[in-house]
Amino acid sequence: MERDPNGSLRAECRFPDRYNGDKVFEGHIVDIRGKSTTPGRIIVRDGTIAAIEPLEKEPDNAPFLLPGLTDAHIHIESTMLTPVNYSLTAVAHGVVNSVSDPHEIANVLGVPGIDYMIENARATRFNCFFGMPSCVPSSYLETAGASIDAARTAELLRRPDIWYLAEMMNYPGVVGADPEVTGKIQAALEAGKPVDGHARGIEGDELRRYAAAGITTDHECATLDDALERIAAGMKIIVRDGSAARNFDALADIIDMYPAQSMLCSDDKHPKDLLEGQIDQLVRRGIARGISVWNLLLAACINPVEHYGLPSGLMRPGDKATFIAVDNLHDFNVLHTVIEGHVVYSCAHGVDRGELLLHEPSGARPNIFNAQPITPADISLNPATESVKVIGVHDGELFTPCLVLPVASLKQERVAKIVVYNRYGRSTPKTAYIKGFDLSRGAIAASVAHDSHNIIAIGENDADICSAINALIASKGGMAVADAAELLVLPLPIAGLMTDEPAERVAAASHSLEAKVASLGCTLHSPFLTMAFMALPVVPALKITDRGLVDVTKFDFTTIEA
Amino acid sequence: MERDPNGSLRAECRFPDRYNGDKVFEGHIVDIRGKSTTPGRIIVRDGTIAAIEPLEKEPDNAPFLLPGLTDAHIHIESTMLTPVNYSLTAVAHGVVNSVSDPHEIANVLGVPGIDYMIENARATRFNCFFGMPSCVPSSYLETAGASIDAARTAELLRRPDIWYLAEMMNYPGVVGADPEVTGKIQAALEAGKPVDGHARGIEGDELRRYAAAGITTDHECATLDDALERIAAGMKIIVRDGSAARNFDALADIIDMYPAQSMLCSDDKHPKDLLEGQIDQLVRRGIARGISVWNLLLAACINPVEHYGLPSGLMRPGDKATFIAVDNLHDFNVLHTVIEGHVVYSCAHGVDRGELLLHEPSGARPNIFNAQPITPADISLNPATESVKVIGVHDGELFTPCLVLPVASLKQERVAKIVVYNRYGRSTPKTAYIKGFDLSRGAIAASVAHDSHNIIAIGENDADICSAINALIASKGGMAVADAAELLVLPLPIAGLMTDEPAERVAAASHSLEAKVASLGCTLHSPFLTMAFMALPVVPALKITDRGLVDVTKFDFTTIEA
Repeated sequence: MERDPNGSLRAECRFPDRYNGDKVFEGHIVDIRGKSTTPGRIIVRDGTIAAIEPLEKEPDNAPFLLPGLTDAHIHIESTMLTPVNYSLTAVAHGVVNSVSDPHEIANVLGVPGIDYMIENARATRFNCFFGMPSCVPSSYLETAGASIDAARTAELLRRPDIWYLAEMMNYPGVVGADPEVTGKIQAALEAGKPVDGHARGIEGDELRRYAAAGITTDHECATLDDALERIAAGMKIIVRDGSAARNFDALADIIDMYPAQSMLCSDDKHPKDLLEGQIDQLVRRGIARGISVWNLLLAACINPVEHYGLPSGLMRPGDKATFIAVDNLHDFNVLHTVIEGHVVYSCAHGVDRGELLLHEPSGARPNIFNAQPITPADISLNPATESVKVIGVHDGELFTPCLVLPVASLKQERVAKIVVYNRYGRSTPKTAYIKGFDLSRGAIAASVAHDSHNIIAIGENDADICSAINALIASKGGMAVADAAELLVLPLPIAGLMTDEPAERVAAASHSLEAKVASLGCTLHSPFLTMAFMALPVVPALKITDRGLVDVTKFDFTTIEA
Repeated sequence: MERDPNGSLRAECRFPDRYNGDKVFEGHIVDIRGKSTTPGRIIVRDGTIAAIEPLEKEPDNAPFLLPGLTDAHIHIESTMLTPVNYSLTAVAHGVVNSVSDPHEIANVLGVPGIDYMIENARATRFNCFFGMPSCVPSSYLETAGASIDAARTAELLRRPDIWYLAEMMNYPGVVGADPEVTGKIQAALEAGKPVDGHARGIEGDELRRYAAAGITTDHECATLDDALERIAAGMKIIVRDGSAARNFDALADIIDMYPAQSMLCSDDKHPKDLLEGQIDQLVRRGIARGISVWNLLLAACINPVEHYGLPSGLMRPGDKATFIAVDNLHDFNVLHTVIEGHVVYSCAHGVDRGELLLHEPSGARPNIFNAQPITPADISLNPATESVKVIGVHDGELFTPCLVLPVASLKQERVAKIVVYNRYGRSTPKTAYIKGFDLSRGAIAASVAHDSHNIIAIGENDADICSAINALIASKGGMAVADAAELLVLPLPIAGLMTDEPAERVAAASHSLEAKVASLGCTLHSPFLTMAFMALPVVPALKITDRGLVDVTKFDFTTIEA
């Protein structure tokens, strides 16, 4: 390929040619399993590959044609984008399929949330293959917006637009054969649909029993040993590299060791990171590390399609004409993305919205947000002891030790208040102490808080905490930073999790928020992400939910008094 | 004076010396009326000038000592700062007195608003001399938060902490001898207090009758002819240069022509501009224009003190020790500000909060904000005609023509919606069309809207208008910009006009808001300021208040139908 003087790629603009109503795409046909390329042309008729013909002579400057990339596990809600707007960024990275778990919106809205995602995604040619969330709610120590039992799960798993049972986090339930849990897994197997795992920290006999229950993937490995043990137990590894958990560097070698058992995924990815790269970026990083490009492409293009039985095809005659063109197999820059014969992206002209979308999405904004504004009196704390329990935060870790600090030292130790406030009904906010955010002033708040997505806020003073929380209530969800002289809000009016604004604007707004939080003294890498996990009462030791402070080691509520 | 390598001043850090408990300030004693300087020392005892003694020999690198500067007309509310925080910026510009009209807060809160300003200012050694607002409310075409009649005005004018009757805008009432209006003026004259004018656009016989009623100043002149006619009528000219109205260049010559009749003022000044300069800046600009520094100092230091009878003195033995030190009478950089013997500012160390403040202010935040959140249905417009009336906006002009445009052309003409919503009680928002803000998306809203300070908003779409307005309701006032992906608010919880945050933070927040508005396509120089005048139904031709669209030429309500 030629390059512009500034080093960027000069894209093929004549792509595709047309003959007699067919679209013809010429290039090097990539045979991933055969580990070879051959000059050829793909003839597309009615969105399907009619034929792939060899070319007589080596074409000049031709792209390499291969099946599109699949993100094998992503929560689209974490991008804060609607499925349609997510698809507008994904295709620019050569991604044509997403195996998407609507876990977050299901915990907020239940089945209508899942239906919203499916309905919205119908507007795009991009393929969002949704799973059935397995854990709604995630725990009974907090108030979620919905509850979906085994019977209802079984019903949904029979639907053709539900492709798999999504990450089964309740491993004690699996191993202990809890009937609700095994009922869900059984329903998936009976419907012929795979069951995804979420097996963080499980090993040995428990892990083998977890896999034997019918769970066939895990995207939570942090080390190569984790991955090898799971492969030995019969599971496949989805190597994850998102905005929060980044495991690619630790796990990449598994792709060359077990290419048939490997896939790639984003899991949780923020709009700014998503704009920079997705599965294409992982393929490039893998090539740069010296991993076989053929194995990387197996993991990125073929394995997920076969594992989940996705109907997007593998660029064979008779398959849907869904494939991508890249510059070469070393640089792996995506030049074109083709879905069912439509060139939805070309690197010279960007995403073609008209080609990608079948129609404009409906504009629906389902949500449940019934919390009422609060005042400082609602979040006052008057501990009855001289020392109190404080949630300890370390950057990049979900584990939060229970610190015990004298009340007299809290200011000096930069201890802030943390508030969780049920957004679904009428209740009172719950308040505790937290150390590690180092806010010298101001407060942050969000309605994205795993897994129940109640309102969570952390602040140096009560007035700013209230103003951040009340701003979220006014916008029916979002992320906010308040310090007395300025209030910034990124509204997320869809389930309090997503906005229907485009990725670029959401990334810009999100960047403004983060810059503002940094200006308040917080040095955490991702303060909103870190905060979002402070209400997840499954990771020890001290957490807080809308129902109160939780001693996770005892799986029970506790008090601030030490 | 020595200068640093980077050109800034090397300040006198030994200032003042101390002998036997007295503070001694050495320098060139400036005799403004005598147009001369003499080496001398000011001996300060108990906050008063005990003596001014000549120095035997010319001191080296000594500053020039002169009475402090007075801002002869300022609405502190327009700075969005509390009197205390305003004083922290004013003293850095050598300003020691402000003749302050609490017109804005009086229209929101009535007498308790005036009392709040006086009470807050008691915490600072800086001298805020408050006047009695003469026009509360300003007109009966809108709903203000308060009404103050002649009897109550007379009562307040008898108080020692009320120094004058502030800008009398109701000139038809003065000229037509409306008993309420003349009652107020009479009360001021009986209390021995001056009456300020506001005589925009009045001339000839009307002007002479206006002056003859006892009105002795005008700060609304735009041309030298205006100023000369007022001087001929017996009035003094307060040359204004604020953030909005900037008349200094047009009027500066009056200072050399009529030095005894001239004063200087800011009127409305935003925090960013205030941080850059105040009366000191006008003196520097005047010197640079070739105006006599002695006449400038008469206008800046002496005339207002004498006109309003301010007790801060004129740097004579027996006066309060309130004066400033500048580097010289050409560059006029303020080195030190001394109030009643306390060095409250030095250019080397900045403002000394401990010296300036007598105690911390109370933290009270009086306000009236009873409006309830709105939805797009509340601001829909369904004109019954093919053409509609549209408020026409031209940058920098308060005059707004009544345009008539076909409904079908509104989008193409970038016509936006404008909403005014009574914030004091329960009511419905009033909506009309406006052209000139050129928003390609988003909305702006504020609770600063002359003179009744209801909520005003302008936006390209209803959803953003509602979200900007509802954000203001949540923060009980302020300024907001909403576009779907981002919401920025500068909360103004004191009367919906002010914040108790420091000037630097308010300036930064205000800058963020303005940058965001510019990013939405608006090219107006000061969009919030321009919007704030769209609800002032005294400037023709078409305006809107919380009670409806106003045809100012007829002083009556009208409809959007053309």
